[in-house]
Amino acid sequence: MRFPVPLTGVVPPLCTPLTPTGDVDTRSLAALTRRLLDAGVHGLFALGSSGEAAYLTDAPRRTALETVVTTAAGRVPVLAGAIDMTTARVREHAASAAACGADAIVATAPFYTRTHPVEVADHFRRIRAGTELPLFAYDIPASVHTKLTASVVLPLAVEGTLAGLKDSSGDAGALRRLLVEAREAGLAERFSVLTGSELAVDGDLLAGVHGVVPGLGNVDPAGYLRLYAHARAGRWAEAVAEQDRLVALFALTDAGDPTLMGGSSAGLGGFKTALHLLGVIDSPHTAAPQVPLDTTAVERVRKLLEGAGLLS
Amino acid sequence: MRFPVPLTGVVPPLCTPLTPTGDVDTRSLAALTRRLLDAGVHGLFALGSSGEAAYLTDAPRRTALETVVTTAAGRVPVLAGAIDMTTARVREHAASAAACGADAIVATAPFYTRTHPVEVADHFRRIRAGTELPLFAYDIPASVHTKLTASVVLPLAVEGTLAGLKDSSGDAGALRRLLVEAREAGLAERFSVLTGSELAVDGDLLAGVHGVVPGLGNVDPAGYLRLYAHARAGRWAEAVAEQDRLVALFALTDAGDPTLMGGSSAGLGGFKTALHLLGVIDSPHTAAPQVPLDTTAVERVRKLLEGAGLLS
Amino acid sequence: MRFPVPLTGVVPPLCTPLTPTGDVDTRSLAALTRRLLDAGVHGLFALGSSGEAAYLTDAPRRTALETVVTTAAGRVPVLAGAIDMTTARVREHAASAAACGADAIVATAPFYTRTHPVEVADHFRRIRAGTELPLFAYDIPASVHTKLTASVVLPLAVEGTLAGLKDSSGDAGALRRLLVEAREAGLAERFSVLTGSELAVDGDLLAGVHGVVPGLGNVDPAGYLRLYAHARAGRWAEAVAEQDRLVALFALTDAGDPTLMGGSSAGLGGFKTALHLLGVIDSPHTAAPQVPLDTTAVERVRKLLEGAGLLS
Amino acid sequence: MRFPVPLTGVVPPLCTPLTPTGDVDTRSLAALTRRLLDAGVHGLFALGSSGEAAYLTDAPRRTALETVVTTAAGRVPVLAGAIDMTTARVREHAASAAACGADAIVATAPFYTRTHPVEVADHFRRIRAGTELPLFAYDIPASVHTKLTASVVLPLAVEGTLAGLKDSSGDAGALRRLLVEAREAGLAERFSVLTGSELAVDGDLLAGVHGVVPGLGNVDPAGYLRLYAHARAGRWAEAVAEQDRLVALFALTDAGDPTLMGGSSAGLGGFKTALHLLGVIDSPHTAAPQVPLDTTAVERVRKLLEGAGLLS
Repeated sequence: MRFPVPLTGVVPPLCTPLTPTGDVDTRSLAALTRRLLDAGVHGLFALGSSGEAAYLTDAPRRTALETVVTTAAGRVPVLAGAIDMTTARVREHAASAAACGADAIVATAPFYTRTHPVEVADHFRRIRAGTELPLFAYDIPASVHTKLTASVVLPLAVEGTLAGLKDSSGDAGALRRLLVEAREAGLAERFSVLTGSELAVDGDLLAGVHGVVPGLGNVDPAGYLRLYAHARAGRWAEAVAEQDRLVALFALTDAGDPTLMGGSSAGLGGFKTALHLLGVIDSPHTAAPQVPLDTTAVERVRKLLEGAGLLS
Repeated sequence: MRFPVPLTGVVPPLCTPLTPTGDVDTRSLAALTRRLLDAGVHGLFALGSSGEAAYLTDAPRRTALETVVTTAAGRVPVLAGAIDMTTARVREHAASAAACGADAIVATAPFYTRTHPVEVADHFRRIRAGTELPLFAYDIPASVHTKLTASVVLPLAVEGTLAGLKDSSGDAGALRRLLVEAREAGLAERFSVLTGSELAVDGDLLAGVHGVVPGLGNVDPAGYLRLYAHARAGRWAEAVAEQDRLVALFALTDAGDPTLMGGSSAGLGGFKTALHLLGVIDSPHTAAPQVPLDTTAVERVRKLLEGAGLLS
Repeated sequence: MRFPVPLTGVVPPLCTPLTPTGDVDTRSLAALTRRLLDAGVHGLFALGSSGEAAYLTDAPRRTALETVVTTAAGRVPVLAGAIDMTTARVREHAASAAACGADAIVATAPFYTRTHPVEVADHFRRIRAGTELPLFAYDIPASVHTKLTASVVLPLAVEGTLAGLKDSSGDAGALRRLLVEAREAGLAERFSVLTGSELAVDGDLLAGVHGVVPGLGNVDPAGYLRLYAHARAGRWAEAVAEQDRLVALFALTDAGDPTLMGGSSAGLGGFKTALHLLGVIDSPHTAAPQVPLDTTAVERVRKLLEGAGLLS
Repeated sequence: MRFPVPLTGVVPPLCTPLTPTGDVDTRSLAALTRRLLDAGVHGLFALGSSGEAAYLTDAPRRTALETVVTTAAGRVPVLAGAIDMTTARVREHAASAAACGADAIVATAPFYTRTHPVEVADHFRRIRAGTELPLFAYDIPASVHTKLTASVVLPLAVEGTLAGLKDSSGDAGALRRLLVEAREAGLAERFSVLTGSELAVDGDLLAGVHGVVPGLGNVDPAGYLRLYAHARAGRWAEAVAEQDRLVALFALTDAGDPTLMGGSSAGLGGFKTALHLLGVIDSPHTAAPQVPLDTTAVERVRKLLEGAGLLS
């Protein structure tokens, strides 16, 4: 497929359903993928943080991506995360993703190691040099522990190294400055800016992002599609109301007790528990060493789904 | 004056003009205050981070606040920062601010020391117990190094300890959750939420904040007032255009060379240099040990003012 | 008194005993001071972090310092913390401390605000210019959120701005590099390096620090004096054994439940509870909004004192 | 070989020499390994942070480890880093390392993802369950962004999950508490504590660590072996003098300009440049996207080697 320039719309970062023994549950993943496609999403992002890419070895990463690509069957573009510590390792994941049929690569700056903006730029150039696919930078300081600044990203966009940015920094001010500077640099129509801030999608669309990558979109894709449509049509009051409903639903990501589990267990466990309660996936299992939600937390998730009108 | 509930509108955090020898320049501060009042601002916030409160000893803090209160002359409410490390010290500043005629107190969580949410809540209760004035919590993790969470703030709002929140966290997602939870708690009309994120005011107003506290409002109050009016009238495209213009102007906060000065020197120096170039204040001087902008940076500020149509 | 150059030995950072209503308990503070003097300490550090300086307003800070100075009566030098956000505020505290009879000033880099090494250096120069007293830099990144580097500290030592350093960074590697570079710069005998890392005093003395500022020295001054004497005499096995005993005793700083209180409440509450159980001070009260130790924690402290042979 | 319990002595974390095209230079790696063996090191740690494990894909990791194992030929134990984000990925590296003939596995807590102590403990248990080899926990907060606490590590040691700890936290106080608590738990002779704090080895040996893993030991193994021998013989003055000499030499890790490169480029580039100047390895090349030292920096390294008596 020809990759959309810019990429717009709702592009959920797919969860990766697992069996109780920790294997990729390809049946459930295909079902989840079809559910999102049928809802009308504009793209799919596999092997992102929501997809537990950090927890999966290379083989199940490939299995997951192949399942998504096969199920998508060219209806929408599939972006693939190539999440690893440094350049050479990311390049291997990117090559593997291309072989699996992905339409674009998403990569973070180096992590684990102490790096410099010059090195970060070189990192993205080397990744791009190793693949035919468009490359998106993934700004997620909560995981990478550095922030991708506009001063690094925009020159890479101008020179054609980067096709887009997935901004999961939650830093609305920095995102706005980047959007304004991108337009000044003539990038408005050729550099795709996607927000991962699923709680402020209305504001980010107002600010000019092209699309949204909402983890919660696994659970309620129709909500995000309505929100997106309202925003694009300038129905801002309706967009806000839809976003507010989704904000309330987002409480399922901290249904788990934070004194008993980490943020990943609670967040991804919340998504998967919801998908399981909705009958989309067979098991709410998350990858080890994440802790499963207890029955109290599961009941909280159920109540939130009912409150959002997703479960009766 | 009767304090507005909720407090809405544009409430700039006043810069504190200084003489070249470091004293409060009361003439310039009165001129700045009048300029903002004449532009139509809805309130004034003295002795905040933009007011260099952290750099001022108690006596000049009082001088600055008295100047603002006298100049405001009851036309709009004056909020006063009571910025200090812990409870007893903040209580003293709050008492002093009340004596100077402030209409409300703004205080952060404790800093310098290692604290706990239970202690943060007690801190605000003790400050409130020591003053007749409404109390606003000031969430500014860049300075305080902890984030005020909704789980701390909202119970304090419900019980009447806090009258409002100034959110300078830049965390749009957390702010949105707080707004939704505040409404669910019946606080919508009695707990004032003000955003300090001056680059995403359109989005934050869309999300439901009551008002905005923009440092850049010292330089371009009319811009923020237009932005606010557009947003309140639902003219979102116009609001966005105005915000984008202000985002471009905001580059004056990093006109200074970051290898030569800290973020405060660059940011506050940028505001003061602009006010000096605009003829509002007599000197761009910032408090020691901040570094002044060099001539290259001053020229950059001038160009930005020209680009924004504020200087010809 | 003539200030020792370099300052060597054990210099405890005095706790500030408070009455149950939060006033400085001067009787208890004098008793604590005498106890340390009688044990043979080489200096006293008032109004440091262990002294709850961050929690005290200016008047009780003065009361506390005057009590210590009067009680010390020139037997040992008294260093006074001048803990505040920025230069002008620190200068006021330094002047007040000099008026109270302190023998040296201890100040951190600016905090709350975003600063730069050039500004930090200027900060110390301005503090020094405002006082006759020797000036010590206080490196405590846990509170200040930046680290004082050797590249900032050593030039200030060479030029005479700084008389010494209190290193509470806990970064043994950086401290060692500073010590080696200080000697290379000819500072060995005129720049006093004091460690605040009370759990690794043997190693830090081995590395070449001149003295130690142990919070736990409030509770067990004799232990730290033995440790110091062993180290100075090259009895390293005995020094290690003494340090190990003190390390076990240090568990009184986390006797409090960390899910119920902050680190300051637990640490300072542990010291004060121990001093109260030992009969040195009248009340274990810490300044608001700190949380008191509960009875379980108090019993833990008692057991630790018994285990260390301080209570029977 | 039977793995020593406890593991004591000097265990350098091997650099991984690369060709100019980025392949593992097995000839140079074997030469480096032989040099360390001939100097008398007590063990070797391959694929650690100093070995650029974060930069190497799986195949060159295996090549490097095989080269070290083959060259060591059973003369000393070879520890292998299994550095990756989460459990399943680490388990694969551990299995691969075992197949390559490693004698022990070294693994960090999960990173990239947000985790909880319960999950960290489960992580180590699952790694241990997947390998016959002894497992060392690797505490390196600069890379992992969380600290391994004694409360997590010691129960894992008691139950037999962990055989040891490599502490690169630089937190001497926490290390000391762990050592004291380990002895109290009866672990003194069966849980190996190795310090990675190469600048405070004398103090850490005094404190009771079993061994040291100094990156600088690649460059000057004889220095660390003398330091270790002095410490074990109680010749503390000589140990300190040797450590001080090594501290001065350590300046080669920041010979590179920090405004032009990250800490990894400077540190690992410094080690490799030194090894190249000493004629041990064929190229100072570090893995992409690290920046090479420029000629000024190389000259600085040369001077430091001359100053340390390693080059004439």
